[in-house]
Formats: sequence, structure tokens, C-alpha cells
Amino acid sequence: MTKKHTLYFSATLIFLALVCLSISAWIRKPDPKKPNIVLFFIDDLGYGDLSCTGAMGYTTPNLDRMAAEGSRFTNFLAAQAVCSASRASLLTGCYPNRIGISGALGPNSPIGLNPAEETLAELLKEQGYATGIFGKWHLGNKQAFLPLQQGFDEYYGVPYSHDMWPHHPDQARAQYPPLFLIEGNQPAKEVKTLDDASELTPTFTERALSFIRNHKKEPFFLYIPHPLPHVPLAASARFRGKSQRGLFGDVLMELDWSVGQVMQELKQQGIDKNTLVIFISDNGPWLNYGDHAGSAGGFREGKGTSFEGGHRVPCLVRWPGVVPAGRVSNKLLTTMDILPTVAKLCGARLPKQTIDGVDWLALLKGDDSMTPRDHFFYYYRKNSLEAVRQGDWKLVFAHPGRTYEGFLPGQGGKPGPNTENHAFPMALYNLQRDPGERYDVREQNPDIIRKLEKLAEEARTDLGDDIQNRTGRNVRAAGIVDTTK
Amino acid sequence: MTKKHTLYFSATLIFLALVCLSISAWIRKPDPKKPNIVLFFIDDLGYGDLSCTGAMGYTTPNLDRMAAEGSRFTNFLAAQAVCSASRASLLTGCYPNRIGISGALGPNSPIGLNPAEETLAELLKEQGYATGIFGKWHLGNKQAFLPLQQGFDEYYGVPYSHDMWPHHPDQARAQYPPLFLIEGNQPAKEVKTLDDASELTPTFTERALSFIRNHKKEPFFLYIPHPLPHVPLAASARFRGKSQRGLFGDVLMELDWSVGQVMQELKQQGIDKNTLVIFISDNGPWLNYGDHAGSAGGFREGKGTSFEGGHRVPCLVRWPGVVPAGRVSNKLLTTMDILPTVAKLCGARLPKQTIDGVDWLALLKGDDSMTPRDHFFYYYRKNSLEAVRQGDWKLVFAHPGRTYEGFLPGQGGKPGPNTENHAFPMALYNLQRDPGERYDVREQNPDIIRKLEKLAEEARTDLGDDIQNRTGRNVRAAGIVDTTK
Repeated sequence: MTKKHTLYFSATLIFLALVCLSISAWIRKPDPKKPNIVLFFIDDLGYGDLSCTGAMGYTTPNLDRMAAEGSRFTNFLAAQAVCSASRASLLTGCYPNRIGISGALGPNSPIGLNPAEETLAELLKEQGYATGIFGKWHLGNKQAFLPLQQGFDEYYGVPYSHDMWPHHPDQARAQYPPLFLIEGNQPAKEVKTLDDASELTPTFTERALSFIRNHKKEPFFLYIPHPLPHVPLAASARFRGKSQRGLFGDVLMELDWSVGQVMQELKQQGIDKNTLVIFISDNGPWLNYGDHAGSAGGFREGKGTSFEGGHRVPCLVRWPGVVPAGRVSNKLLTTMDILPTVAKLCGARLPKQTIDGVDWLALLKGDDSMTPRDHFFYYYRKNSLEAVRQGDWKLVFAHPGRTYEGFLPGQGGKPGPNTENHAFPMALYNLQRDPGERYDVREQNPDIIRKLEKLAEEARTDLGDDIQNRTGRNVRAAGIVDTTK
Repeated sequence: MTKKHTLYFSATLIFLALVCLSISAWIRKPDPKKPNIVLFFIDDLGYGDLSCTGAMGYTTPNLDRMAAEGSRFTNFLAAQAVCSASRASLLTGCYPNRIGISGALGPNSPIGLNPAEETLAELLKEQGYATGIFGKWHLGNKQAFLPLQQGFDEYYGVPYSHDMWPHHPDQARAQYPPLFLIEGNQPAKEVKTLDDASELTPTFTERALSFIRNHKKEPFFLYIPHPLPHVPLAASARFRGKSQRGLFGDVLMELDWSVGQVMQELKQQGIDKNTLVIFISDNGPWLNYGDHAGSAGGFREGKGTSFEGGHRVPCLVRWPGVVPAGRVSNKLLTTMDILPTVAKLCGARLPKQTIDGVDWLALLKGDDSMTPRDHFFYYYRKNSLEAVRQGDWKLVFAHPGRTYEGFLPGQGGKPGPNTENHAFPMALYNLQRDPGERYDVREQNPDIIRKLEKLAEEARTDLGDDIQNRTGRNVRAAGIVDTTK
């Protein structure tokens, strides 16, 4: 080998070594294309509680900007109009009655989200995501059901609603156990007073910001289920008295601030262009709390009902350069559809068991010709099929249900009366021209009724229907612990 | 004088001559800072008829983008919930009953907007604006009242609603005179068929685009009062069948296209950064037309009522760099407030006679601390004070009025029934938490009632109240022509 050959050979070797090093670095480096996911899930926030959905007496500039910089979805439904059930649907992609979770679990409930169900956090963890939840869990407060056992690396928050405490104005609740913030699996700090409650929003915000800073170099899933504006309302000193809408407005201003802080941190860390941010709510407003409740924005009824005021919640999604800016879509979507969509986006698999969610990633990215979801079943109570919807037609079945109308709402944090057993008659509504569900148009549309009845029958066979005393073929059990031990 | 001196002297002269020429050019050139004004005023478009306000079955991407690039005002009221009255308020800044204009003027009405009133077009013309209107006038169809006599340089459009024609499905209208498009002051082309009506939106759009091209070098005021989606609905072939919401959706898609065309023309001419574009509607949806009517987005009732569904209309404003992008404001505003705001912006004076509009320019430009309007009076019929509002409290007086609720809406262009004389009882609503006006909270708020009653008394003295047989002190007469000649 001549000197010249040796030189060529060495140069070639160095070149190959560099190539190998580059490839190895490229292989080890987390895929820069895996986006971070930030998911805000707000409690009892009504459709009408943001400026961009018509709120009055305060403004939500950070959320409005998020809507303008991203897309807003005006036809997004909570899978069930109540807390635990809605959270179960979000994290599993299932109708909550399919997995045995109904209503709002009490502090002494032996029930929780079955660990056999695969949550969004578990699916993303498999893909190397750091996963954190800061806020309200409410899918079982026994240790077996807490977030660390359901795919989350970090948890700081309240295990259930912060009105489930001995300090509630309702004397019947005096027997509730003390409410503790949970750090990981351990009780950390009691929430005793409204002053303590006023620290919830800023504390979870601060934890979320730390989580972003700590995990900025790996893909992360950050779940922020703020416990407010669920009652009892509490805003920190910085926001108290700042709105024209009393404490409720103050609380909303603080929640808007929280979103603004998270957005700012993402920008400061230089990762906002690689982060999908979703903002939704668990169900509509708890209307009998009057001035301490939000607004369904003109939709009928609120939380705990199968009318649109119970189910329709705000949905904002921002991801610069991927989700179109300033676009508004009215395609039918639900909390169940978050899991398959985010899973697809992040290269995660779907759960092994049946889910009800549908993937709407193409729509999210701007393909407005996509109609991801054909229909939706409005279940309430344990397993009552109260309404069925296809497109914008909604058939409400005769059912006993909650109504707020005709009752004077409460004030100052005390609830007004409502009934749980109003006899709602059967009715057909066209939500396109009658979003307020005021005009029964059964008489004009016998064919539509037949179609919707047929769909409802399928649901009754699959999931059951307590109104007709029918048992579903494909329901699974919630997790349950033996509390006698 | 030496040769050197002569040279100096000549140079000085040339310099001075150039300075004079420059000054003269500068004096003659229109002030480059005077912005153009484009004002869309859509007919019977409900609050909920844009995607960004919740429309279903079609989308309005151009309007949604306009909202994201500019500001949206969610608490904007038509001064009266019916056509001619609303238009009168827009162009004069007055409660329509102050200037003698009520309801919708018929083709044979001898009445029109009094030429003694000063319109926004007249005020802007004084400032050197080119003024054009392409669309529906409806402030008097006798020649004395037509746009060219009210401050507009150019007019092409329909003189009143295009359902006021002999071709209406309602036989009672068979005696109406033929409907003609008016060019300047002269009848130009008959609108005979729905095919003719389907040309209205594209024709007025094309005229608007020409107007922009012709006047791009001077400041202009372009008023585009599209006659649709007022019935009878008609969309051009390009849009027919394109929405999931039938003909109504097709019409909305075409109106959205029209706005997109105007925006594009402004950009192509390089003047969009010096142009304020406003998009509003004259009143809420005409609900008994059912599938041929829009949606009040969950607000109660519609056109021709003093509930929010009658008055609340979309309001979008875009002016890049001046009106904040992605901002949503919920400050109370009305059609009457357009005139003083635009006048101030363009350096125009106010009318010499009393007006009711308030200037909200600072708010428009981003000062969200500004609350331009304290209260509003809901007048209907000739002069009936049906409700009064201060901030977000609304006191509805006992009155006979139109209701759509409880009646099956019509289909396919034929109206369903409604009553004009439902006995509405007195009620107090808090629009912050009850935008749907469902919960009467008089019992809880006697002080609020007293305040609102006091305000109402002032209105009754000033403007009158037919419900109490009271005559206002400060009302002016409409224009009237002798039709016997």
C-alpha cells in the first residue's frame, strides 16, 4: 500500500466512522417528530364559559388566542355528562358504561377504573413518553386505581371532587372523610379551607411548568385536569374580585392564566412547535349553583342531563404548522375520540379490548372533508340510554331526568333546588337549526325516527339500557377492591 | 450679479419650485392615513350561523379566518330586531323609533329615512370618501329616499326585501308590484324567479370588487347589505347542493365566499392593511321558516322579538395591525354604535341632531378596559318598550309579542305558524349565567329591578312607550312623500 493509498484508506475509515457515529446518535436520539401532548381537562366548565364561546363578565384572552392560533371544534361532546364517567371515557376511549364507570365516584367507593383497561397514559408510556398528571383524578381513590397504577409516572392532585369534604355547606356531607392532595400514592396535604382550595389552580400550574422543564428533551404527555370551576369556587388573591362575574369569573380568569403560563413555558423551552395542546371540559355547568356555576351558552340544561348543555363542551386544539390556525370545525366528536387520535399521532397502538373512540387525526390536521363520527349514544345514570344522535338529528327517549328549568338557582355557593326525576317526553330535535332543543319535529320526520330507533337498538344490545331493563352483551366490569379488609 | 451668483440664484429657485410642487402634491393627495371602510350587513343571519358561532352542516372558513385575524364581539345587538328599523339605526346611529322608522317598510309605503337625517355615508362623503352600496336598501323605495339621495355615489341593489314580490308562496302577496333591481335611481332588471334571486349574492360581490378596484387610490366606504339569507333562499349553481344543511347552508357558503372574495381583492390591491372590514347582521333568524331559517345559536326566540335571539348578531371586525388579532370581546355594543366609531376613525363629524350611538374606537383598537355602552332599550312594534338591559341584567316587561316556540317550523321555503300576540310576563334575566333567558330571577333581585325600571322611565320620557300609551319628547318624523300625486 502506498502512502497515498494509506491516506485515502484512513480518510475513508474516518468518514465511515463519522457516518456510523451519526447513525448511532440518530438511532439513540428520541424521534424528534414525536410530539408532546398537553391535555387540559376542566371541571364543570360549560360550553359558554370562554370568551370565544360567548362568556360574559370576564374574558379569556389566552384561550381565545389559542383558538385563533389553532382550531376550535364546536360540536365536541363529553361521553357522559358527569365527572368520573367523562374522565373514564377520555383515558380509555370507551363509553363509560362499557367499562363499568358511572356518575361521580364517592370518597368511600370501592370502585375504580379497572387496571385491566389500557389508558392513554399507558399507551404513550410504551412509546417512551414521560407521563404526568397534575389535578383531579376521580377514577378511584383506592391505591390500586390511582394514576401511578394507570400509566402515569408522576401525580400530584386531588383524588376526587373537592366538594366531597366535611366542610361543604350541605350538612349531609359532614361525614365525608378529610380531603387530601395526593403526591404519587401518598396523602400529602389536607385541603381544609377555601383558602387551601384557592391554591389548587396555581399549584397544579406550577407543577405542570416544572414537568415541562424537566422533560423538555423527551416526548411527554402532560395531563392537567384542573378541579375548578367545580364548586366550591376559590380563586387566589391575585384574581379575587377581578372579574365582573363574581367569583366564578375570577376562577375562569385564573384558569385562563394557567393556560397562558403553560403556553409561555412551551415557547420559552422552544418546544411549542412540537407540542399538541388540547383544551376540553368534562361536562356542562352545574346550573343549580347559579352565580357559582358556568353557562351552557344557550344550550339546554347542564351537567347531569342528556341535553346538549350537559354534553357540549369547548374544544380547542393548537399545534402550530400542523393544526390549521383560525379554523372552526363542527364535526361531531367526543372525549372518547381523543385516545385513538393521540395514539395514532404518537405512533402508539390501540387498546387490546374494544373501544368506542374514532380517530380524527386527518380532520385535526385540516382535512375538513373527513367526518370521523356518525353517531353518539347519550347514556346516563347507571346505564340508561336517554338519547341517540346521528349527525345533527337527536332523538330523546322518554326518561326521568334532571332538570334545572323552573327552579330558582342558588347563590353564593349554595345550590338551588333541582329535580332528578322530571318526566321528559320523547322528542326529535334538529340541532342544526334548533341547537337549543326546543322544537320537537317528530311529526315531520318519521323516517329519521326509524333510523335513530334502529341505531338505539344496536346500542341496547351492545351496551344495555336500564330504561328497558336490558343488559348489554359487551360491557366490562369496573375495578373493585375489598374494603372489608 | 456674477455668473456664480446667478447659478446660486437659479439653483435656489429650482429648489423652491420643487418644494412648492411637493407641497401642492402633498396637499392634493388624499390623506394616506384615512382608512377604507367595508361594511357587510347580512339579512336575517342568526347569531349561530357562522362556524365560529357554532353553525352546523356547513362551514364559513373565510369568516372564521376574519375572526381569527381580527376581533369578534359576542355581545353585539341589532338596535331593533327587524329589517328597516335595524338598517336605519346602522346608518344614522339612532334608535330607529327616534327617527320614525319601525318594522319592515312595504313596497307601497310612502315612508322612508328622512333626508334631514345625516347618514354615515353623508358624513364620510364630506371627508372625501367615495361611497357605494351594493345590496338591499330598505329605507324607503320612493326616489326621495333612495341611497343616491342619502350620501351614496353609487347604488345597485334591491330597494326592499326580495320576498316582497308577486311570486311569494303566500297568496296574499300576489298583489305586490314586481321587484326591480335599481341602478342609481332607475329600475334596471326585474327579479322574477328564484334563478334571478340566485344571482344576487354573486352580482353584488362583483360590483363590490369593481368598486374597490375603481376607488383604490382614494378612501372609500363600501356598504354591502346582502339580501340573503332572508327568504326566499337562492344559491347560484356553484354552491347549490354543496352543504349538509340544505339550501340555507348553500346560501351561507356563498355569502362566506363573497366575504373571501372581498378580502382577496383588498389584498390584491395592496390596501387590506388600510381597510377596516366589519361583518354584522340586521337581526336574528326568521325561525318559522324552519330549514330555510338560520339559528340563534341557542339564544331565545328570533327575528321580531326582544329576546336575545332577535337582537344578538355576529360581529367580526378586521384591520390588521390596528384591531387585535384573535381577540374576543363581550362588551355590550349595538348597530347604532357603528356610526360614531367609524366617524371618529375617519375624522368625520357627528350628525347635528341627537344620536344614540356611542363611540367604541378605543375598545376596537384593543383597550379592553373600555365599556362603551351602559344600557340598551329593546323597542319593538311602533314604539313599544319590551325590555331594558343594563350590563348583563335584562328586565323584560309584560308585553304581547311574537313567539316561535311551541309551533312546528315550516319546511322547503314555506313558513310555519307563529303568533304575534303571546302574552310574555315580566321577567328578570341574568345574561351572564343564563344567556338563554330561561330563569326569571326577579325574586332574588329587587334592587336590580328598581334600577332597570328607573332607566326604562327615562326611555319612556325620551322615546315614548306604546305599551303605556306614552309619547316620547324627542322623537323625529320619518320622511314621507305624497303618493296621491
